[in-house]
Amino acid sequence: MQKVGILGGGQLGRMLLQAAANYPVETFVLESDPDCPSAHLCHHFRQGDIRNFDDVYAFGLGLDAITIEMENVNIEALERLEAEGVRVIPKPSVLRIIKNKIRQKQFYAEHGIPTAAFVITENRAALEAQHAFLPAVHKIGEGGYDGKGVQLLHEKKDLPLGFDAPGVLEKMVKIRKEIAQLVAVDSQGKTALYPPVEMVFNPDLNLLDYQLSPADIPTEVLWKIEAISLSLVRHLASPGLFAVELLVDDHNEVLVNETAPRVHNSGHHSIEGHYSSQFDMLWRILLGYPLGNTKAILPSVMINLIGADGHSGPAVYEGLEEVLKIDNAFVHLYGKSETRPGRKMGHVTVLSDEKQDLIHKANKVRQTLRVVSR
Amino acid sequence: MQKVGILGGGQLGRMLLQAAANYPVETFVLESDPDCPSAHLCHHFRQGDIRNFDDVYAFGLGLDAITIEMENVNIEALERLEAEGVRVIPKPSVLRIIKNKIRQKQFYAEHGIPTAAFVITENRAALEAQHAFLPAVHKIGEGGYDGKGVQLLHEKKDLPLGFDAPGVLEKMVKIRKEIAQLVAVDSQGKTALYPPVEMVFNPDLNLLDYQLSPADIPTEVLWKIEAISLSLVRHLASPGLFAVELLVDDHNEVLVNETAPRVHNSGHHSIEGHYSSQFDMLWRILLGYPLGNTKAILPSVMINLIGADGHSGPAVYEGLEEVLKIDNAFVHLYGKSETRPGRKMGHVTVLSDEKQDLIHKANKVRQTLRVVSR
Repeated sequence: MQKVGILGGGQLGRMLLQAAANYPVETFVLESDPDCPSAHLCHHFRQGDIRNFDDVYAFGLGLDAITIEMENVNIEALERLEAEGVRVIPKPSVLRIIKNKIRQKQFYAEHGIPTAAFVITENRAALEAQHAFLPAVHKIGEGGYDGKGVQLLHEKKDLPLGFDAPGVLEKMVKIRKEIAQLVAVDSQGKTALYPPVEMVFNPDLNLLDYQLSPADIPTEVLWKIEAISLSLVRHLASPGLFAVELLVDDHNEVLVNETAPRVHNSGHHSIEGHYSSQFDMLWRILLGYPLGNTKAILPSVMINLIGADGHSGPAVYEGLEEVLKIDNAFVHLYGKSETRPGRKMGHVTVLSDEKQDLIHKANKVRQTLRVVSR
Repeated sequence: MQKVGILGGGQLGRMLLQAAANYPVETFVLESDPDCPSAHLCHHFRQGDIRNFDDVYAFGLGLDAITIEMENVNIEALERLEAEGVRVIPKPSVLRIIKNKIRQKQFYAEHGIPTAAFVITENRAALEAQHAFLPAVHKIGEGGYDGKGVQLLHEKKDLPLGFDAPGVLEKMVKIRKEIAQLVAVDSQGKTALYPPVEMVFNPDLNLLDYQLSPADIPTEVLWKIEAISLSLVRHLASPGLFAVELLVDDHNEVLVNETAPRVHNSGHHSIEGHYSSQFDMLWRILLGYPLGNTKAILPSVMINLIGADGHSGPAVYEGLEEVLKIDNAFVHLYGKSETRPGRKMGHVTVLSDEKQDLIHKANKVRQTLRVVSR
């Protein structure tokens, strides 16, 4: 059996390990929290810091392949492991590009990938000099996550909200749709595209409200999304599972927002909605099997379950019974013992042929299920 | 989080644990083999003998609920745990009835559940006195499994093949179809029926060749199957997930063959084919959640992967790449390091709207994928 390691033990690792149990593979997880959602679902749990060279290097020695469930990992250790023959998927060179949002934007510009106009800002003073560039979005270069490290700057008086650290200031785009395009790339460079999904965000937290698959877009927009995403992953030149986040503007122009070189929140619906889920697909890539079928079994909606405001502590799922009664809903709770405001605690996928049924049930789930503390 | 234990750590436990990761539950497994398919997928693995009173009792102390993945467990320990407040699902009283095939047949007779005519045989001498009852099937009372402990006795000269131990001799039925009916029963006695499936057996090993869902049967036969199965589980008077194996004869009469009070080989297709899989359903029952939706997402066929004759040792999956290319196939390998002739090593489910596509692909899987040893 091949030995495969995952850096990080959160819900993405958990769902990867659920899928791993369909394949002959010996699984390893590196994570600092021994109570993380993945710890009990792997063959070998190693406690350690995924940002620490020694921890990552020691973890990777002797593995056949290694992957990530978040970008904030020690790239130097992965480079050394790769040089020594471990298959690192995605390649460390990709992580270098993506981990820093400045470098990521430069990469798009260098390769003609459409993306919003931007300037790089070294610190707050440099940011304040860019007041004529507003309205814009300020993103911190390193360390942002789940909506943190992103700040909307509508006008000059908002500038103090920006980051006093290297960052990228992007022209605000009039967004018609936010799209995520999952792309699988195997070790021979073969690719497979999932149908793009459409994301509806909660403006308060910049967290996903719900997500429809497939996205309701004109064919010409679909073609642009596919062409841009394929061009992007080909320039990244690495096997892996990639989630490309794109913006469609008022004129149906398509711009790349960000790319994640890993299984992603925007692919959770694929567990039940697609023949090969994003998690199944990544195992195929890691183990050298043929790419899976990205076709949808049925259209779907996916709703994230987020820790409610004002609640920190042992998690309780209010309304769970009601949601478990919905005929065509699939509930995934991540087994995190503690909830916090805004923490991702689970998700629900609903499958249906009818878009109205999907939207109706997405709203029902959002109104019914709340993650609170005792 | 509730603490739930599983007696046995084979592939049924493995698939139960894959499904458990969708729920807030702390999982425990008792099994003698620390390399079993479930050992690395639970929170707490306990090495021990599921047939031993002390091992089972110690394992169950402090659990909220306990279930089984095979019938051959220590019932006395489960009775004591139940008396002390652990929810044992299925109830030990059910295991008493089902574990012994003589008692099981008597139970059907007592409650008017249609089943083939039978006589009880204490030993080979008693069996040989029943030559006028042939052709018949001889089943050993205790210890049979996966086709072992079952012997076809067509005529008098076959009698020495029968068991020299307490058993049941059943009149051979002219079988038109073999059916499995999954029934879920919750703690309030609410029930949910899956569509019955049709099994096609390999006559050599008495192991499943492939299985079609839904079964292709007339409505009147469906009604009989459902009515008989519901009557049966109501008389068992226990929550749980039950697989009722039934025979349909030449006159469309329906007879119960055997019942398994647990997740079962005949329900594997439900992982991808149904909104609530048999594994998801059992967790709902164990944790006190509402029963899931038993409706099929699409029709399906399921093929068991059996260790090839003449091969014992480290398992190799010949033809796996070919099968992983089939568009609508889902491969499940159970992670058993050693193959043996006839050992269940995995299964493949194919989903399709078209029956011919299902049968074509079932045959393709059977002809392509072989589990051999290096």
